[in-house]
Parts: sequence; C-alpha cells; structure tokens
Amino acid sequence: MGIVIELENNRGKKPTFDVLTAIVAEDMTLVNQLILKRMESPVALIPQLAGHVISAGGKRLRPMLTLASAKLCGYHGERHITLATCIEFIHTATLLHDDVVDESKLRRGLETANSVWGNQASVLVGDFLFSRSFELMVEDGSVKVMGILSSASARLAEGEVMQLLTANDTETGESAYLEVIKAKTAKLFAASCRLGAIVADRPNVEEEGLEAFGMNLGVAFQLIDDVLDYSAKQATLGKTVGDDFQEGKITLPVILAFRRGDNEERKFWRRTLGNLEQNENDLERAIALMQKHNALDDTVDRARHYGAMARDSLGIFPTSETKDALISLIDFCIERPY
Amino acid sequence: MGIVIELENNRGKKPTFDVLTAIVAEDMTLVNQLILKRMESPVALIPQLAGHVISAGGKRLRPMLTLASAKLCGYHGERHITLATCIEFIHTATLLHDDVVDESKLRRGLETANSVWGNQASVLVGDFLFSRSFELMVEDGSVKVMGILSSASARLAEGEVMQLLTANDTETGESAYLEVIKAKTAKLFAASCRLGAIVADRPNVEEEGLEAFGMNLGVAFQLIDDVLDYSAKQATLGKTVGDDFQEGKITLPVILAFRRGDNEERKFWRRTLGNLEQNENDLERAIALMQKHNALDDTVDRARHYGAMARDSLGIFPTSETKDALISLIDFCIERPY
Repeated sequence: MGIVIELENNRGKKPTFDVLTAIVAEDMTLVNQLILKRMESPVALIPQLAGHVISAGGKRLRPMLTLASAKLCGYHGERHITLATCIEFIHTATLLHDDVVDESKLRRGLETANSVWGNQASVLVGDFLFSRSFELMVEDGSVKVMGILSSASARLAEGEVMQLLTANDTETGESAYLEVIKAKTAKLFAASCRLGAIVADRPNVEEEGLEAFGMNLGVAFQLIDDVLDYSAKQATLGKTVGDDFQEGKITLPVILAFRRGDNEERKFWRRTLGNLEQNENDLERAIALMQKHNALDDTVDRARHYGAMARDSLGIFPTSETKDALISLIDFCIERPY
Repeated sequence: MGIVIELENNRGKKPTFDVLTAIVAEDMTLVNQLILKRMESPVALIPQLAGHVISAGGKRLRPMLTLASAKLCGYHGERHITLATCIEFIHTATLLHDDVVDESKLRRGLETANSVWGNQASVLVGDFLFSRSFELMVEDGSVKVMGILSSASARLAEGEVMQLLTANDTETGESAYLEVIKAKTAKLFAASCRLGAIVADRPNVEEEGLEAFGMNLGVAFQLIDDVLDYSAKQATLGKTVGDDFQEGKITLPVILAFRRGDNEERKFWRRTLGNLEQNENDLERAIALMQKHNALDDTVDRARHYGAMARDSLGIFPTSETKDALISLIDFCIERPY
C-alpha cells in the first residue's frame, strides 16, 4: 500500500543543509580529527567499537550546531572544536546505550554495535565515551560549560527513563510525550547551540536565544523522526520502517491515532503496542489508521510549529550567511526524507 | 567439601574498620543525606532503582576513604561531603552497569536492580547517576577535581572493557590481570583518597601519598574479593560463591592454578572457564585445584604485598587516630571474611 506523507516544501526552494555543511566544513574536519584522536585507548576494542558508530556518520547535526552557533556569534578561537567533540561523544554514548535498551539490530542501515560486539561492550564503551567527553570539558576548563553539559546529560538520562516507562502505555498523552522528547533529544540540541554563545562570550540574551533555537529545533527534529518511522520514504533509503511500532514506542503519531480512534481501533493499539502481540499486517494497519486520522500530517504540522519558534528564537541575531543557513536547517529538519 | 582459607590475622588484634567508621560517622551521615537528596528526580523510578542499590549498603568504602583522607589532612570544610557523594554515585553507576554486563542476579544477597527492573532501566539509571555525579563536581567547582574524577571514570570504563576481553581467556597472565584491576577498581580508590589532600589544599607529595595509598589498597581489596569468590566463608554470610567461576572471569586464583597445573588440569580450566561448559561438581574441583596449587593463599599473599605498600604510602603523614584507622583498614580489607 502507498503511504502518502506530503513532506515537500511549498516555499519554493528545496530545504537543504548543504549550505550549513559548507559553512562549518573546515571546523568539522578539525572536529573529526579530534574525535579520532580522543576516542583512542590502549584497549583496542574501544576505538574499534566507537569508530563503528561514529564513522557510520549520521548527519553530525549536534556538533554542527555548536560550530554554527559559535560562528553566528562571531567566535574566532578553538574552544568550539573541543566542545563540539564533547557533544558528539555524549551523543554517541547515548546511541550505544539506546541500542542496547531498544535491542536494535540496525542503525542507519548498518548493524548496530551491540549486534556486532554484544550488549556488554556497548554499555562499557558508552561509559568510556561519556567519561572521555567530561575529560574534554575539563580541558576546556569552563565550569559554566561543564554545568550546562552535565545537566543536559542528566536530563537526557531522565528522558530515556521516562521513555522506557511510557513504552507500551497507549494512554500516554501528548504533553507527557513532549516532556520525554524535550529531555531525551531537545535538551542536548539546546546545549549544543548555547555553547556557541558561551565560547564567544556573548550576552545572556544571545545564550538564551540559541538555547531556545536548539530546544525547538530538537523537538521538531524528534517529531519528524517519529513520523519517518512510519514513512515509506525511509524504506527507499535503506532504513527500517516500523522499529518504533515493533518496540511498542508511544510516539505522537500513535497518540493522535489512538485518541482519535474508536473503541475497536484502540483495542488494536492496545494489542499491538500495549501487549506487543503483533501479526503480519499490523504495521500496515497502523499506518492506515494514522492516515485515516491524519496523525502523520498533523505531527508534521506540530513540528512546523516548533520550527517557527526556532526561527523566531534567532530573531535577535543580525542577518548573516550563517543565520540563513540555520534557518534553512530548520526547514530541512522538517521536510527531510530521512 | 571443606574450603580452608586461613584469613585470620596473626598480628594479635583482629582487624576492624569500626574505628574508621566511627571517625567518619558524622560526615557519613551528611553524605547519606546528600545521596538521598541528589538521587531525586521527577522520574520516580530513578530514586527507586538507585535507592535499591545504594541502600543495599555495602561498606561505603570509597566515600569513607574521601572523608578519612580529608580528616587525615586536617580539613575542616564541607567539600569532602559533596565529593564523597560524587564518588558513591560513580561507584553505584558502575555497579548498575556491571550487573547488566555480568547478568548478575544477586548482589550482597539481594536481587540486583537489573533482575528487578530489567537491564534497560539499570543502564539508564546508571547513566543518570553518572551525570549527576558530574553535576555535583560542577557544584564543587574545582577543575582539578573534575580532571581527576573524569580521568578515573574513563580509566574505570577501560578496565571494565579489558575485563570483558580477558573473560574466558585462560591464557591471561598476572600482569594483564593486574592492569585490569588497577583500572577497574584501584583507580577510583586512588581518586577517592587523593581528593582528601586536594580539598585540604595540601602539598603535592601528600596528594601523591594518598593516591598511592588508595591505589595499593584498591589492588589488595580486589585481590581479596577474587579470593572470596572461591571461599566458603562467603557462603556462611549469605553471599554466593562461584559467581566469577560461572561467568568465566579470569582472576588471579585461576591464573595461578592454571599456570601451575598440568595439561589435564589446563584442559579442565579451558573447558569450564574458556568454553563455559560446566558440570555439577566443577566448582568444587576448581577450588580443590586452587588449594592443591596454593593459589588462594598465594593470592592473599600478593594482597599483603600491596597492603604493605599502602601502609608505607602513609609514612609521610604524622601519627594520628585517623592514620591508625586507615592502616587498620588495610588489614581489614585483607583479612575480611566478606
């Protein structure tokens, strides 16, 4: 069956993050070098396993945000390189632990570290990267930065625990869900951006502007991630569709479909996500119910709302190439097919 | 069968850590209060799960070392309370992840957190406690302290990975084993002690003296832990014997028995620990082989050697009640029945 989710941008230009990528390209090369250097360990398995996850690539969105925010604030030093590396290490540690928690077999079309090296190594190498990120912060030397990143990390862990607790609970409401994604995803986006203003020693209002930009962008990003897990577009890109469904994760498309559905439909959701009793055509049925109730499109609309707030958060910054690129990034995060 | 391991102290007085416990009792009350306060979270499962591990008690040896070291250095402030709490959080996070990695069902005679709440929650609450420990360090505000603790944490994770890699490898040598236990256990003991000199702003030689004391004490402590896992005394205290054997952990008693054994015995070790093919009476046979080759007694002797170095590390400090209590702690760690 066809899954129609209109993700095309209707403001003319196709959103892209190529411009932002180009703007931070030189800095990103330095970040990549530092990542390689600082994931080293006499214990060979550590760089091997960490390298598997880190080089699998992904978009390097979070360190990119730190680099771009620093540029937006006119920063010319080198601290943003170290801190972007920190952020990527925290993110990678989280990915490693996430995959263990979710028992995932694939990430970005590649086997997950836990399926190659086992859960045990993934837990421990995650711990190593997390500690290493703190070592990097210590080298940077700013207690303020350490405060922001340690709080963001604690919040992130709280978000993951909340997500674990709401998994399989079809009664979860939209606001509980929002609290989870703010903690588990958006808070680190917010910290990544805020660091740009901090290294550039900009006034508090700019720190807060960048924090709000990152927070709203992070929420939009996660909402779209949750939509894409039910989207056919992903499948054409070699990504798995239906992972969240299989795990019984309660995301906004589910919440909307559940609340808008009738008793018979709710029984379906309780069986498949609540009790994880899933049959062959259940994923198709789930997607059909979401489409019937406009749950996917409306989730994209919710993402656009956060995107709009992210855009306005940048209002205090004068026009610049970097600002334009960050705004284009918002559109990209919302309209992206992957 | 009877397992005879002579752990009695032959220097007259029975070693105890009651004196040290009494010396730090008031401070420890404050640490316990801070632990309870700072493991709080709006996500109720976090304090619930963390509380299960932390209140299961154990000896609180690591925070006790920070408190006692601070006292030894004549410190009168409050930073040691925060830092001892940090240390206990790092240690607890490690325990949570360890139990997941080892698939342990019992710890200190109680069900492990992972067997009550599942591996997923244990991984994530471990991450939370680890992040929270960094938040506490940030509140303390010393970049030097953060450097020591972040390095110790990274080293700890390296040690755990090394241990994972040497598990089931009966060819592991004594020096590789020593490297593992220095990293996974002794480094945090060393950091715990060093902090005492740092908060008291004592000269480098005292920092290093306390670091060396902690490092050597930690090695001795772990050696004895590894002996106790094959000791009948544990069994009488409601603790499981043979956990390490069941998991195929290569500890010093095994290494000595393996190296001193004949071909037929090595075949036994390879089958039981290398391939984890274990039959009903294998643990008894393992203990019998260790006794035949004096592997347990000699491991205790090795521990005494590290104990002697720990004692000498305190030589630069003038005699005091706290110093005596720390020396008595060394003896206790070596002669303890649990």
